[in-house]
Amino acid sequence: MSALTEARIARAYLLRVAEPPAPALAAFVAEVGPVAAARAVRSGECPRRVADETAARREVDRTEQDFAAARKAGARLVTPEDDEWPAWPLLCLANAERRGVRSAATPLALWVRGDVRLDETTESAVAIVGARASTNYGETVAGELAYGLALRGHPIFSGAAYGIDGAAHRGALAAKGTTVALLGCGVDIGYPSGHVALLKHIANQGGLVISEYPPGTQPARHRFLVRNRLIAALSEGTVVVEAGRRSGARNTATTAGVLGKIVMAVPGPVDSAVSAGCHDLIRDAGSTLVASVDDIIETVGKLGSQVAEKARPKRATDGLGSDALRVHETLEKREGKAVERIADESGVPVPRVRAVLPALEMDGLAECCESGWRQRRVVRKLSTNVSEIARGAEVRQ
Amino acid sequence: MSALTEARIARAYLLRVAEPPAPALAAFVAEVGPVAAARAVRSGECPRRVADETAARREVDRTEQDFAAARKAGARLVTPEDDEWPAWPLLCLANAERRGVRSAATPLALWVRGDVRLDETTESAVAIVGARASTNYGETVAGELAYGLALRGHPIFSGAAYGIDGAAHRGALAAKGTTVALLGCGVDIGYPSGHVALLKHIANQGGLVISEYPPGTQPARHRFLVRNRLIAALSEGTVVVEAGRRSGARNTATTAGVLGKIVMAVPGPVDSAVSAGCHDLIRDAGSTLVASVDDIIETVGKLGSQVAEKARPKRATDGLGSDALRVHETLEKREGKAVERIADESGVPVPRVRAVLPALEMDGLAECCESGWRQRRVVRKLSTNVSEIARGAEVRQ
Repeated sequence: MSALTEARIARAYLLRVAEPPAPALAAFVAEVGPVAAARAVRSGECPRRVADETAARREVDRTEQDFAAARKAGARLVTPEDDEWPAWPLLCLANAERRGVRSAATPLALWVRGDVRLDETTESAVAIVGARASTNYGETVAGELAYGLALRGHPIFSGAAYGIDGAAHRGALAAKGTTVALLGCGVDIGYPSGHVALLKHIANQGGLVISEYPPGTQPARHRFLVRNRLIAALSEGTVVVEAGRRSGARNTATTAGVLGKIVMAVPGPVDSAVSAGCHDLIRDAGSTLVASVDDIIETVGKLGSQVAEKARPKRATDGLGSDALRVHETLEKREGKAVERIADESGVPVPRVRAVLPALEMDGLAECCESGWRQRRVVRKLSTNVSEIARGAEVRQ
Repeated sequence: MSALTEARIARAYLLRVAEPPAPALAAFVAEVGPVAAARAVRSGECPRRVADETAARREVDRTEQDFAAARKAGARLVTPEDDEWPAWPLLCLANAERRGVRSAATPLALWVRGDVRLDETTESAVAIVGARASTNYGETVAGELAYGLALRGHPIFSGAAYGIDGAAHRGALAAKGTTVALLGCGVDIGYPSGHVALLKHIANQGGLVISEYPPGTQPARHRFLVRNRLIAALSEGTVVVEAGRRSGARNTATTAGVLGKIVMAVPGPVDSAVSAGCHDLIRDAGSTLVASVDDIIETVGKLGSQVAEKARPKRATDGLGSDALRVHETLEKREGKAVERIADESGVPVPRVRAVLPALEMDGLAECCESGWRQRRVVRKLSTNVSEIARGAEVRQ
């Protein structure tokens, strides 16, 4: 069995053992790698907090059945060891975790149904979420916004629920765009029952149906809330279209805010109870009012770069995790190194090196050349402004 | 003829001579007093900028006819020499003028139809303005907000136009509250014709109909825009309920913002063209989204004190005009002085002293005692925080 296959099997096992979010387990896996983590969990010889998260189900090993059920449902397991792993969008979870947001644990892997690459669907993705008990107004608006955004190349993420979620997915499909459904149950569970055809449609038409819950996992309220962090993390911004004052959609919005993502809300009639949550978000939570596709694109574009700039640490390597720092320090300025050599020299396990490098690349701190990975020469470390970088380049000539 | 009568007649003459806003004339009157200003204007021997503003009509003296027409319409002239002059709310115009906002000229006087005191109607007043071509939704919301605010003691200011304005006035009347209509024509002109009964109703039921235009002045687009500054200035905050992207209501909102007043906007369906202006205000101009009476009261209360705090100058007397400074310096710390003595010692004319003192009082810089006016002892000049003031007082004991 190859090391990669071993890592996949370990992750599938761990996904079933611990009910997400499992922050201690996620941290443990990041530290020792999935194979060693799985071995430790299985034997019960792991740090106390990890043991707490995994005690109840650590003897349940249904990995083979899970892979079989996934295959039957047309799904695969995507892991941090895979090229298509959305390392960059998920970084916000790791960052939030580091800031002490317990519910922000990075998923250990994701069960994915559909043919496109997962990382491609997250590029400039917009989440559109909202009330199940929506009005005609809300559904029309959600559908039109999703349609318009999808036409302009923005993948639409949502939660496959009745009401606003369904309208958003259908709007994107109508534009032949990409849409991604994040579930709070297994990818093989037809839930909600009225959306079985919609989910099939999404997976077959260039979209994805995703869950961190193993095949067969039944839907539950707490799972929808846990799932919400993935909707928020994998998209650049979240648009709330109709939401009650206490609702799942508001939970997604709050999570998106905690993760440093852009939160937008669509206004509606002041006498509509399902617009009240949106109005609260705009008035009290600093969410941006959006009334059109242009508003959303402008907000995601503008604030996206501002947020990135704000979040950017003072030194380029500030704020990196210990693994990322060790990997970065191992890289040379000119010559590239193979992943195995980096792992050897840094002491960071190969899979973890593989997970960290693309994040460093997105951060502008590493790049891939013919001979492997090397440090990226940063022209102007703190600038994300292309024209400034161009000017800097001119000056150097 | 008493000095006061003379000042009234002078102001009535000047109101007809110059088309508002007439910032040079307003400044000239503030400097030399209305009687001297009127004499200078009449003879043409006045500063060049004042002459420019008054040249066209300086030989028209219809003062007697104006008073007669006003009397016939049940109106009176309220001037800065009168107790009921709203000196405090109008200060924002003088301040804006000083910052160079040309259109912010203080009115020389106001023609007022109705029985209540003008200054009482401006206490915690809220302006509700909006589109003439409003929807049922907008009219219902405007009416309900006005009704609820009036029930809780907030006078409702608006512009008497069809649509949102009318709904706002009617909502306040339905609650037997106070409502004030600011006109862009003479108070004796029945405009718009469909609102003749409404205007009469307002004036007869504890409200006011106000204009700075002399009786008989016909309505005109530019007069509505000039009038808008008075709606904004005389209320603590302006609520926009439905407004096209370029509209008079947005003009009032912009003016209110320039004057440092609170601007609020009511959201609506995103597919409604008359809600687009409100959404723009919330998204781009920093207006506060309000969806209920409670929202408005909270916003006016909260931001009102914040704005006051921000606008408060570093030294208590910074930002005062030259007259106000001279009057303030003339006041003693213990003994009160009569207005005439203050005028004599400061060289500021009596009527101007009368206009300045209540403003100084509102600013916490002067107070009236048995023997007249004196400087107010400021416990802690920069604090508006009651508990801090209380602590300061304790320390002194």
